[in-house]
Amino acid sequence: MLGLDPGLRRTGYGALFMEDGRPRIREAGVLATPARGDLGRRLQGLFREVDGLLRELRPAAISLEDLFVHREFPRAAIALGQAQGVIWLAAAAHRVPVVALAPGAVKRAVTGSGRASKAQVQAAVRTLLGVRRVADPHAADALALAYAGLHRLRGRA
Amino acid sequence: MLGLDPGLRRTGYGALFMEDGRPRIREAGVLATPARGDLGRRLQGLFREVDGLLRELRPAAISLEDLFVHREFPRAAIALGQAQGVIWLAAAAHRVPVVALAPGAVKRAVTGSGRASKAQVQAAVRTLLGVRRVADPHAADALALAYAGLHRLRGRA
Repeated sequence: MLGLDPGLRRTGYGALFMEDGRPRIREAGVLATPARGDLGRRLQGLFREVDGLLRELRPAAISLEDLFVHREFPRAAIALGQAQGVIWLAAAAHRVPVVALAPGAVKRAVTGSGRASKAQVQAAVRTLLGVRRVADPHAADALALAYAGLHRLRGRA
Repeated sequence: MLGLDPGLRRTGYGALFMEDGRPRIREAGVLATPARGDLGRRLQGLFREVDGLLRELRPAAISLEDLFVHREFPRAAIALGQAQGVIWLAAAAHRVPVVALAPGAVKRAVTGSGRASKAQVQAAVRTLLGVRRVADPHAADALALAYAGLHRLRGRA
């Protein structure tokens, strides 16, 4: 399960696998996409990075946050949609299903509460995955998404 | 110049070329993208249609509306961003520059007023391009974008 926390500047990723019935980190980090230049080039960079991850990790599914309302600016909602569109496209090209999770569902899966703070979510992720720290907060968010995605798929099975 | 008015269900397109110093319609219509199914498949359908248009028409540039604030719903802003992201990606793949135009700039280029109504814009487009009617309002919007894109590029030259 590959969690992706998209942004045009930094996209966190976190891949989990199951070992003895417990999720373990396979790989986590931040995709290097060009921070400057034409939007098309930046989206192309994001597409290539996600495409590369899908080739390398061959996840069974991708977890993405499904934001209905963006808290900050409408402009940010459009930018987020642009990055999400590119990820959906890469997923379709690899025939990898996407699990779209509401922010509350991610928090609930990880902490038990849909209203947990960002810090609580990140602390719970470290505990659940048995690691002392995750280098980047975007990667930690992506791992939380991947964890919640596994949780969702197990609930369905 | 290819104008694109994106939506996930219907994306209008309109391509103009210059003849004797006047813009003429090369082709205009609505892209057929799957209305149902997985978002990834729908975005993939949009990408393929835009990719096909770029191969066929080889436009010098693409005109897209640059919405800072979406008038309706934040959800619509994200959906619009997803469709836009796919178009920017297709443009980057073909190395076609994108001219992003604010809605007011499109209205001003076509009617002379940044506050023209949709009906005024569509009537002006028909007059400017010398046609009695345009089959689809999305195609008419795309032609207005293409016209404004030509206007912008001429202004720069």
